[in-house]
Amino acid sequence: MKKIRLGIVGCGIAARDLHFPALKELTDKFEITALTSRTKEHAENFAKMVFDTLGYKPKVFDTYDELLSSGEVEAVDLTLPIELNVPFTKKAIEKGIHVICEKPISTDIESGKELVNLSVETDKVIYIAENYRHAFKYNKLRGLIGEGAIGRPVFADWHWWVGMDRDNKYVKTTWRQKPRHIGGFLSDGGVHHVAALRVIFGDILWVSGQVRQLTDYLGDVDFISTLFEFENGVIANYTACYSIKSDEYFEIVGTEGKMRLTPQSIVVSGKRDEEISLIQENTFKKEFEDFYEILTTGKENILGHPVEALKDLAFFEAAIKSKGERVFIPEFLK
Amino acid sequence: MKKIRLGIVGCGIAARDLHFPALKELTDKFEITALTSRTKEHAENFAKMVFDTLGYKPKVFDTYDELLSSGEVEAVDLTLPIELNVPFTKKAIEKGIHVICEKPISTDIESGKELVNLSVETDKVIYIAENYRHAFKYNKLRGLIGEGAIGRPVFADWHWWVGMDRDNKYVKTTWRQKPRHIGGFLSDGGVHHVAALRVIFGDILWVSGQVRQLTDYLGDVDFISTLFEFENGVIANYTACYSIKSDEYFEIVGTEGKMRLTPQSIVVSGKRDEEISLIQENTFKKEFEDFYEILTTGKENILGHPVEALKDLAFFEAAIKSKGERVFIPEFLK
Repeated sequence: MKKIRLGIVGCGIAARDLHFPALKELTDKFEITALTSRTKEHAENFAKMVFDTLGYKPKVFDTYDELLSSGEVEAVDLTLPIELNVPFTKKAIEKGIHVICEKPISTDIESGKELVNLSVETDKVIYIAENYRHAFKYNKLRGLIGEGAIGRPVFADWHWWVGMDRDNKYVKTTWRQKPRHIGGFLSDGGVHHVAALRVIFGDILWVSGQVRQLTDYLGDVDFISTLFEFENGVIANYTACYSIKSDEYFEIVGTEGKMRLTPQSIVVSGKRDEEISLIQENTFKKEFEDFYEILTTGKENILGHPVEALKDLAFFEAAIKSKGERVFIPEFLK
Repeated sequence: MKKIRLGIVGCGIAARDLHFPALKELTDKFEITALTSRTKEHAENFAKMVFDTLGYKPKVFDTYDELLSSGEVEAVDLTLPIELNVPFTKKAIEKGIHVICEKPISTDIESGKELVNLSVETDKVIYIAENYRHAFKYNKLRGLIGEGAIGRPVFADWHWWVGMDRDNKYVKTTWRQKPRHIGGFLSDGGVHHVAALRVIFGDILWVSGQVRQLTDYLGDVDFISTLFEFENGVIANYTACYSIKSDEYFEIVGTEGKMRLTPQSIVVSGKRDEEISLIQENTFKKEFEDFYEILTTGKENILGHPVEALKDLAFFEAAIKSKGERVFIPEFLK
């Protein structure tokens, strides 16, 4: 089985805590041949971790340019401050190197469109890693709706109260404290939720939202509430806050029943009464498997396509700018 | 103690099931001297009920005009199809007779403004009966927020899933099946909720909403979801549906805690942990007591003022017309 020679660019939290645990399970598909990080010590620690875990040591490069020119990599995994996603992806593509890049696609829609256009022009793959698109639970919710488990879906409401304190590892990231990406944590964390909602219901037609900045240490607005409509006619609210901790709440109501997503299960009631346990899964592993198949079998890039990631981000840019006015997402994306 | 000689106009569900149980507890304040109803049988049955309960029989009049001219009444209690509220109130005021009129104030804002203007011009009282403004629980929620029980209030979400079937007594009302009032059940039932929300948080600045008609037997749209902002900066969602039955959900989140309203209690958590049992109370009795004091002591009409009822209704007219656009309520009311 062909192994993809992969360079990891940015050896911070995402690379170490999210991507490496997946990659170490995929040693038949990926070989981590090269590393680089703005803080060289991070790259060296990462190289040691790879050696301790997998028994080989990737080369550490001082700069991204050197890594790209080294001949050591066929693909790069970008786990970077969001503002670097677009320029770093463009550089890799120029060098004929495939890219898997951690979400969100970009700081804003305008710059994200460059990657969408580039992905059409190039024969290399640009894969935006959005693990929520691979999650069992959201795909199961879509499946249940498709089976008619709650009749015709009418309404969804998702409350996401994260409540990060000053000591949170993400909060302590310098580039998150002075974000150049729209909406700070709201979009950084929130694109996951919009991805999930789009898995379940499809594309969003319009959104009306309002935001607040409740704290001084999260760098930007940290509360959002929205009203929006999917192209399939389902109406929804999504409320998220990164400064207040409370219970998550996700409910979908249909004409003949409802479904609630809990941390452990999907609870269906009404026409059908059922509790479906959530499976343990590593969705990061799934996204790397998908990326691998795209590179090696010519499978179409659907779940990692930049246009999907752009639609997730567009929700936030539209909602934040809307101040309660309706903003049509398709027009916003044009 | 002076008794107000009261004529009841419209002897349907509201008069029988809501107002009479309150009035029969207030025999020191009100004497039901006269009745009239489009269906005369209803008035006669009502007269019999008054006799069986209180030992005296009100006069039954064939027409509203005869009742107004009879000299039997100082005040009328209007429990009518909504479209009659404005013309019937105007007629009473012309005759120098005080009015207590069941909510909502009118079919739409334009006609409701007539009563607001009339209430300023006349020395008679026009009292729009909104029992939710008198309820302990909403006033208690406001009090708790004032005490800082949850820090600074940030967000509220209220889901109201009524799920009325075809046999519901309100659904079977002819005038509700072909409503001339905006939004059908959405505004008819919903003004209560907006009144409650305004008790807790004050006036609403703007609303953005979307509606659906999910059934054919409720006469109009029967689902609404909204995003709105109070003048005090609190952001909220309100979702109501009269064709799907589900659990009510009402939560208020602040910077230091939250409060949930259950059928039995207010559950406060966070900074303060407390469960406050709801008291048994007849809020219709409270509104009649308020009306009585206004008539007899010169107390200012605040809770029953037509402008308050108009603001409740304005939320729905604005939200229904908005289709996701932001509509400013104060401008809408001008």
